[in-house]
Amino acid sequence: MNDRKLILYIACSLDGYISKPNDDLSFLDRMQQEGEDYGYGDFITDVDTIIIGHKTYQWVIDQGFEYPHHDKDVYVITRTGKPKENNINYYAGDVKKLVSSLKEKEGRNIYCDGGAEIVNLLLKEKLFDELIISVVPVILGEGTRLFNDNYPEQNLELISATSFDKGMVQLRYKIEN
Amino acid sequence: MNDRKLILYIACSLDGYISKPNDDLSFLDRMQQEGEDYGYGDFITDVDTIIIGHKTYQWVIDQGFEYPHHDKDVYVITRTGKPKENNINYYAGDVKKLVSSLKEKEGRNIYCDGGAEIVNLLLKEKLFDELIISVVPVILGEGTRLFNDNYPEQNLELISATSFDKGMVQLRYKIEN
Repeated sequence: MNDRKLILYIACSLDGYISKPNDDLSFLDRMQQEGEDYGYGDFITDVDTIIIGHKTYQWVIDQGFEYPHHDKDVYVITRTGKPKENNINYYAGDVKKLVSSLKEKEGRNIYCDGGAEIVNLLLKEKLFDELIISVVPVILGEGTRLFNDNYPEQNLELISATSFDKGMVQLRYKIEN
Repeated sequence: MNDRKLILYIACSLDGYISKPNDDLSFLDRMQQEGEDYGYGDFITDVDTIIIGHKTYQWVIDQGFEYPHHDKDVYVITRTGKPKENNINYYAGDVKKLVSSLKEKEGRNIYCDGGAEIVNLLLKEKLFDELIISVVPVILGEGTRLFNDNYPEQNLELISATSFDKGMVQLRYKIEN
């Protein structure tokens, strides 16, 4: 029995936005604090595979960055597949099949790095095992919502709720599937 | 200087719904636990005035209940005013004026008892002083959202994050206006 988990690790405002319009992430700036990584280091150590939507991946590239995580298998979910480049797999198939096949293999956890479209696709298929949501102390009033409509109701089990100095609260849940 | 506060005290799912379609509140049932009121008793002791939307008020009445809080001044926000009945004021005017005039008087806190329409009206006018949001461990995927679009960004200061046995997390924020 393999217990690889698919985990969402993401920050949002109290009113559920992951960005303001035009991919504006400046609300996260206030959370930056030297020596505080909000548990990300521990989290990412247990991950060897990443699933990310094409738009979010492309956004990182368009900012002039390389996508990090060279040591991990990355699956970019696209509408049109293309050949693998180094550790980057462009995947145009069924995400349910992808997650099933990943979970059949031995490995560490699978991290969903957003964005909202892929998150909602995975919620619709009830594929997440855990949700780690870092609630930033702000209401934004507009932008891209983390949660959209139209996935089935899913009960959660609270694993932990951790508060940080800057007022961020990190909620960690197991999904009771 | 009067420090009467307008406070939202409400429960929602992790994905931000205060009810499923057709005013279905059954997701709250799992949270019921003998001897646990999730801080409501302490909260309501400091309240002497309630603001509630007409639809939410009418929903309570339609369930065959009396609206509780006979000892408090209740303002039901309606489109068409009607004469006061006992402690119930039907208010068809500008909510900003209502809140201002209440805050000019001496008194204890003002509790906003929902629903989403009145919450968003008050957010739009930046009238809340505190938000107490009890996050129920479930994602619902459809229903009435607590937060809608189109109010100004507002920074929050985390006062407390309290976890309860059944996995509810109560987040309490001061709004930095």
